[in-house]
Amino acid sequence: MGCTGRSFRNIKWQIAMESLIIIKIGGNIIDDEKSLLSFLQNFSAITGKKILVHGGGKLATQLAGKLGVEQTMIDGRRITDAETLKIVTMVYAGYINKNIVAQLQTNGINAIGLTGADGNSILAHKRNHPTIDYGFAGDVDAINSDLLSALLEKDITIVFAPITHDKKGQLLNTNADTIAQELAKGLSKKYKVTLIYSFEKAGVLLDVNDENSVIRKLDWKYYQQLKPSSPDDGGKIFAGMIPKLDNAFAALNSGVDKVIIGKAENLKELINGSSGTTIING
Amino acid sequence: MGCTGRSFRNIKWQIAMESLIIIKIGGNIIDDEKSLLSFLQNFSAITGKKILVHGGGKLATQLAGKLGVEQTMIDGRRITDAETLKIVTMVYAGYINKNIVAQLQTNGINAIGLTGADGNSILAHKRNHPTIDYGFAGDVDAINSDLLSALLEKDITIVFAPITHDKKGQLLNTNADTIAQELAKGLSKKYKVTLIYSFEKAGVLLDVNDENSVIRKLDWKYYQQLKPSSPDDGGKIFAGMIPKLDNAFAALNSGVDKVIIGKAENLKELINGSSGTTIING
Repeated sequence: MGCTGRSFRNIKWQIAMESLIIIKIGGNIIDDEKSLLSFLQNFSAITGKKILVHGGGKLATQLAGKLGVEQTMIDGRRITDAETLKIVTMVYAGYINKNIVAQLQTNGINAIGLTGADGNSILAHKRNHPTIDYGFAGDVDAINSDLLSALLEKDITIVFAPITHDKKGQLLNTNADTIAQELAKGLSKKYKVTLIYSFEKAGVLLDVNDENSVIRKLDWKYYQQLKPSSPDDGGKIFAGMIPKLDNAFAALNSGVDKVIIGKAENLKELINGSSGTTIING
Repeated sequence: MGCTGRSFRNIKWQIAMESLIIIKIGGNIIDDEKSLLSFLQNFSAITGKKILVHGGGKLATQLAGKLGVEQTMIDGRRITDAETLKIVTMVYAGYINKNIVAQLQTNGINAIGLTGADGNSILAHKRNHPTIDYGFAGDVDAINSDLLSALLEKDITIVFAPITHDKKGQLLNTNADTIAQELAKGLSKKYKVTLIYSFEKAGVLLDVNDENSVIRKLDWKYYQQLKPSSPDDGGKIFAGMIPKLDNAFAALNSGVDKVIIGKAENLKELINGSSGTTIING
C-alpha cells in the first residue's frame, strides 16, 4: 500500500509542467540604449526558462529615411514592400537581435537569436486583405515547437526577431505582439506559460490620462463591462488597448496560464504580481 | 566465442565518427542571386550533417556607400569602425543569413542561422595589431561546440554569418574563412570533418592564368616545393593562395580529415573528389 502511494506521488511530480516566461518588449525600450541595457539586466535575473520577443522601434524607419525608402503606415502597421522587407530583416534580425543576444551573453545568459525561418519555428503566410496590400506582412499559421523545446531544455534563452517565413523562400515582417502570443499558445502544451506584454503604460488604465488608474486584475466579465460596445460609446478602456486585450483573452483560452501587461521597467514587479494588469480567465 | 566477436564488431561500430561537411562560400556566390539559388540546391542535396559559412559579398559595401559610410580595406580586410560594424551585422547576420535559411527551408532542409554570439558558439577578441587598427574585427579564441553538436544531432543544418562576439557585449566582424576553419577544428573532436573552401577558381592552380592547371592532390611536401621561399622568388602557387593553404594544413594538423578547395558551382564534384584540389596530410 505504501508503495502504491509513493508511485502516485511520483506520477504527480512527473506531470507538473515547468514554467516558461515569454516577454514581449516594444520599441520604446529598443530605442533607448540605457533602458534596453537595464531591461536586459532585469530579464537576465529571471530564473528558469524564458523567451524574449522584440519589436523594431524607430531604427528601421530611420534607416529607411536615410536610404530614401518611403514608409507607409496603415493603422500602425507598416506596409512592407520589397525594399522595406530588406530593411526590417537587416535591422530586426541582424542589428537588434544580435546585439541583444551579445548583451545577454555578457550577463551570463546563454541566448540564441531566431527568426521564424530558423528551425522552421514560425510558419506564416503573406497577409491577404480584401482592400489593403500590406506587402510582405506575415500572418502566423503555426508554431513548430520541436527546436524551441529542445533549446529551452538545454536552458538556452531564445530571443525572437519579428520576422517569419512561408516555407516557400519568402521572409515576412510579422507583428511582435502576435509572435509572442502564438509562441505562448504553441508552447503552452508543454509549459505553464506566463505571457508578458510590456509597453509604455503602467498597465491597462481605467483612465488613459491617469497612470495611477491601473486595473490590477482583469477577467472576461469585467472586460466586457469596460469595453466600448461600439466605437463611439466611449468605453472605459482606451481603444488602442482593445486588440491587445482581445489577443490576451484568446491566449488564455488556448492554454496560456497568465497574461500580464505593464511597463518593461517594472519587469520584476510584473512577474511577482505587484505591478501591471494581470489578465485571467474567469 | 561467437559472442565476443560480435561485441568487438559492436565496439568498432560505436567509435566510428559520423561525417560532417563544412562549406565556406564567398562573395562571388552571394552577390549573384541565380548562382546562390543554384548553389543552395546542390548544398541541399548533400545527405548527412552539414554547416554552411557565408561571407559578405558586395552588399555591405553597397549599403555603406548609400549611407555615406566610407570603407577602408587593408590587405583585403575591412576596417570595421562602429558604423561599419552596424552595417555588416545588418547585412551578414540579418539579410544574407536569413534569406539563405528561408531558401534552405524551401528545399526541405531544416536550417538555423547563427552568429558566434548565438549560444556563445564562437568566442573572439578584438584584433590587437601593432600598427593597424582594424576596429571591431574579431580573432577567434574558441569554439563552444555544445549547442552546435546538439543542433547537428537533431539533423539541423547550421548557417553561420561571419560575426562573432567577445562575451563582453561586443559583436565582432570576423573573416569567414577563419570561422569555417575554427568550426572544422573544434568539431573534429566529434565528427569526421571535410572542410570545403569554395572560391572563384577551379582549385589551386599551378599557373594562375590557366584554369586547367588545377593541382588535384596537394600534400605538405609538394606544397613546400611549390610555395615561394620569399616574396620575390616567384613560386608556382599564386601568393593570394598562401594564407588559405597555410590555414588548410593547420586545420589538417588539428584533426580535420580533409580540406578541399574549388568552385562552389562544382559542389557535388568537390565532395566526390572529381573536381578541385584536395589537401591532405602526408
